[in-house]
Amino acid sequence: MPEFRKDPLSSEWVIFAPERRRRPQDFKVSRETAATESPFIYGNEHMTPPEVYACRLDGSAPNKPGWKVRVVPNRYPALRVEGDLNKDAWGLYDHINGVGAHEVIIETPDASLPLEAQPVGDIVHVLEAFKARVVDLSRDSRLRYIQLFKNHGPLAGASLQHAHSQLIGTPVLPSRIKNKLECCRLYYTQKERNIFEDIIQQEKRTRDRVVYENNSFFVFCPYASRMPFEMAILPKRQSPDFHSCDIHEFSQLADALKASLLRLNYSLDNPCYNLILHTAPLRWSKKNLSNMVSEDFRWHIEILPRLTAHAGFEFGTGSFINPILPEEAAKHMRNVRLP
Amino acid sequence: MPEFRKDPLSSEWVIFAPERRRRPQDFKVSRETAATESPFIYGNEHMTPPEVYACRLDGSAPNKPGWKVRVVPNRYPALRVEGDLNKDAWGLYDHINGVGAHEVIIETPDASLPLEAQPVGDIVHVLEAFKARVVDLSRDSRLRYIQLFKNHGPLAGASLQHAHSQLIGTPVLPSRIKNKLECCRLYYTQKERNIFEDIIQQEKRTRDRVVYENNSFFVFCPYASRMPFEMAILPKRQSPDFHSCDIHEFSQLADALKASLLRLNYSLDNPCYNLILHTAPLRWSKKNLSNMVSEDFRWHIEILPRLTAHAGFEFGTGSFINPILPEEAAKHMRNVRLP
Repeated sequence: MPEFRKDPLSSEWVIFAPERRRRPQDFKVSRETAATESPFIYGNEHMTPPEVYACRLDGSAPNKPGWKVRVVPNRYPALRVEGDLNKDAWGLYDHINGVGAHEVIIETPDASLPLEAQPVGDIVHVLEAFKARVVDLSRDSRLRYIQLFKNHGPLAGASLQHAHSQLIGTPVLPSRIKNKLECCRLYYTQKERNIFEDIIQQEKRTRDRVVYENNSFFVFCPYASRMPFEMAILPKRQSPDFHSCDIHEFSQLADALKASLLRLNYSLDNPCYNLILHTAPLRWSKKNLSNMVSEDFRWHIEILPRLTAHAGFEFGTGSFINPILPEEAAKHMRNVRLP
Repeated sequence: MPEFRKDPLSSEWVIFAPERRRRPQDFKVSRETAATESPFIYGNEHMTPPEVYACRLDGSAPNKPGWKVRVVPNRYPALRVEGDLNKDAWGLYDHINGVGAHEVIIETPDASLPLEAQPVGDIVHVLEAFKARVVDLSRDSRLRYIQLFKNHGPLAGASLQHAHSQLIGTPVLPSRIKNKLECCRLYYTQKERNIFEDIIQQEKRTRDRVVYENNSFFVFCPYASRMPFEMAILPKRQSPDFHSCDIHEFSQLADALKASLLRLNYSLDNPCYNLILHTAPLRWSKKNLSNMVSEDFRWHIEILPRLTAHAGFEFGTGSFINPILPEEAAKHMRNVRLP
């Protein structure tokens, strides 16, 4: 059974996932992705747990070929759907059962097609799958947060090349999310303005960190980018919840995602990256000053290219060292000529 | 000129270091360390900036062969020693000049000798170099924190194989340090007991996470280890300051370091790791409730083997997923038969 343990020196929760365990002598790490046949192609549906969602425009049967996007529980889950939380103390240590969700969103049946190479209409199907899973999981009263993310390439932690994203739903609010919500709330309390809107307005004045924008989304390299060529995608409409997006916004978001990731690929020769979707916690508003979060926090996406190592200084301090200014990275990506 | 920029969404400082910049097209990352001749061997002293400290038992001249440990400014520094802080605002963004220290501690003139393969007496010379640099830099009133760390192996961010550590002195207190100090203080305020002492006492009762101990130091796999085979080295004597150690304690610490790192090597076939030394901030006590820190915080060392990837979930949430329980890792390392 997986479990959460709280570090008494940082108050951060760590997930222990024995299902992902290999024996100690197996820890001879390889940084190459496996070259075996993908378990995510048509005909290999039996190689994953049964699907919890699929986009099937042809009316094909569940767990059979014919899907465009397919969501399945992770075969080596970090957390388990079944069970009670059983919050507990062991002396000075805090402990919770590893209850939660861990799912894989298979973005295409084509093992060699990256997300950004898909037509905008197909990327929309992926975004609809994200939304459907968030809406479904938000009914589970044990969950407090859903982290949607994508690991692309071995240096970003991907063990399979086949394009996929993941979500992990947790019964605790992770420290970084809590800190971000508190920063946004403090800003709103002081200024009575939304910090994301203020950032967009300031970035629009100089435009030297802007990478791309369309009617609904604004893409830029953040002022304090932790990593070279880091990008943020902000919606222009205020909403704390990713799942509030309609089909028109998803079409604009698919366009912005495609434009951003293609620029990254052409600038840096297809780098490894992590994509992180930050949306408001589940049941956050009930517990914390009611509807305030709907004004102070805005859902958004971070794209973190993995070009520099996360080393002793970063782990020790939580601070990052970035050798490239975001103005330089943005200029480079704005000037990319897409084929 | 390097600079600090504060992320308005997290309040975390990021260091921008153009001296470490390569051109965008150079970002084709290799994960292998360079195979060229080490700049840190005898006769190559001219390849580094002039030394700021050296252990020379033979009375040899500065920047010449004969040293046992040598400390030099980093040739590609993240921060610069010269200049004023010039704290400033650009619209809603905060900015500080990149003033600070970035030094390399060369642990041996032997390019192929890892730290833990050195005799205890030689490791003591390395620890004395750490102490001498912390004491010297603490006189610089612009600095608030000194992070000592060691990156071993390419997956841990090391660009050279030759055994070395680094220190970075910063004019801001990094977020993770601040959070840790606050956790320790909160515990002390609630219980009137030191959290590190309580952890040692609890670990001694079960001993299932203990790896090694000697008269002055206690080595164990923390209850909420973020990474497989993570270890912490705690001094048994209460002190917030690493540089309060005397020669006898350094000899015990060298023994504990050697025992821990050798066990890690033999368990996991010489894995990449980060070693992080947490000591109290400079001038922390003056600014924050005077001498309280001397009771509530204790300096300590973290050893983080780099066996699992830091991926989208970890960057998004700040939480870690660990497939190995610390009880299992500690048992494995206790049972190692050192040759």
